Amino acid sequence: MNLIIVEPHELQPDNTVFLGDRRADHIRKVLRALPGDTVKIGILNGPQGTADLLEITQRGVTLQVTLGPDSPSEPETDLILALPRPIMLKRVLAQSAAMGVARIFLINANRVEKSFFHASLLTNESYRDFLIQGLEQAVDTWLPEVSIHTRFKPFVEDFLPEIKKECPVRLVAHPGSQKSLPKSVSLPLQQRVLLAIGPEGGWVDFEIEKFLSQGLSPFSLGPRILRVDSVVPALLAQLTLLRQIKEQAFLSPDR
Amino acid sequence: MNLIIVEPHELQPDNTVFLGDRRADHIRKVLRALPGDTVKIGILNGPQGTADLLEITQRGVTLQVTLGPDSPSEPETDLILALPRPIMLKRVLAQSAAMGVARIFLINANRVEKSFFHASLLTNESYRDFLIQGLEQAVDTWLPEVSIHTRFKPFVEDFLPEIKKECPVRLVAHPGSQKSLPKSVSLPLQQRVLLAIGPEGGWVDFEIEKFLSQGLSPFSLGPRILRVDSVVPALLAQLTLLRQIKEQAFLSPDR
Repeated sequence: MNLIIVEPHELQPDNTVFLGDRRADHIRKVLRALPGDTVKIGILNGPQGTADLLEITQRGVTLQVTLGPDSPSEPETDLILALPRPIMLKRVLAQSAAMGVARIFLINANRVEKSFFHASLLTNESYRDFLIQGLEQAVDTWLPEVSIHTRFKPFVEDFLPEIKKECPVRLVAHPGSQKSLPKSVSLPLQQRVLLAIGPEGGWVDFEIEKFLSQGLSPFSLGPRILRVDSVVPALLAQLTLLRQIKEQAFLSPDR
Repeated sequence: MNLIIVEPHELQPDNTVFLGDRRADHIRKVLRALPGDTVKIGILNGPQGTADLLEITQRGVTLQVTLGPDSPSEPETDLILALPRPIMLKRVLAQSAAMGVARIFLINANRVEKSFFHASLLTNESYRDFLIQGLEQAVDTWLPEVSIHTRFKPFVEDFLPEIKKECPVRLVAHPGSQKSLPKSVSLPLQQRVLLAIGPEGGWVDFEIEKFLSQGLSPFSLGPRILRVDSVVPALLAQLTLLRQIKEQAFLSPDR
């Protein structure tokens, strides 16, 4: 936990906040903070700042919060993800929040096990905890927006046309493709990206055709087949890198 | 398990192999193969090919193996990794093997918990299983070479000078650096890379200075602090991408 994250409604009008849960445990037992000490704090979907520790009791800790001026900027990537098994979903949600994703569309696909949609992680919205853990790790406060789509075809035909309007770059990861990512986007990458990642075993032909008909470009990471908890950080990191490459840096690297 | 991996000594002179462990279970229960069916097979550190299923008994399965001509090529990345906690190490070893790493140097650092070196995962060499799981996933047979270094200074002073001879590009991931990866390497990246990744909490100043004095270049992924099971796939994927970028692709992307 590299940032203590507080929900907006927890902050009192006098800018104090009382924490009695694992965040209080972290402040007391990991940070070993004492009254007078300062910790880093962030408001979910809001600014970051510092918090002075006013009081520690058996029930928890009271903090006096001072916030900076800047709200987080919206990440420039949206993720369409064939719903993975719950244990993987937990990791991938934390990874996605940590690396910066605006929207996550969890969708059905031929090779998604239908039972995954009934996991308690989804039905009671406990997945939100894993997003917040990712933000605590990465020192960010932008909570990705998650939506769940139990039918593939209506998602692609009815939702995708709206979603893609905001994303000029539209990609679908597909091990069968011959194209690598640098050949599938214009460099330097400066636009918002929509990225679709398939289930274990990949998208079936029908699904790839539907994505192509919606204007998504297929690309492949290479011949290696990776698990979704490697693919997600791998592809998000590649997009980050493509955003960092400037023409000048490419033509005359400074070393 | 996208590839059944067999140790060289398991292969009989008549090119048959008997499997009685989880590989046999996979062939029977996941692939549901029957005598006459063919499965993909690879020899550890050797060629890949196909195997005809000759016989299924309660004890296991017997396969007739036909191998291709090509042994795997050595990956072009070596990894220095501050020893992570065992649960993370399992994931990171599988991820590294899956993404292609030649050598993994597990080293001590100021912020590594000393108890991690006594984990049974290391002392009984069971970490090898996780490397092989990564290869089975990624359809590769190159087993990364793992070595364990319990003291930081002797590693950097005595081993690193030898290690780096094979790696013209030498990098150390350090969140404090202002340089991004594309600014730290010459593009297109065509040489072997040595990449050092620190512990939770990062390298301490002394460690960074020692790496710099050995000619490693510091770079940062950006302001986000990621867990090691996200950092490893993220950085290996960025190196892969830098190897894929050709000048032409950069100047005139084909879209």
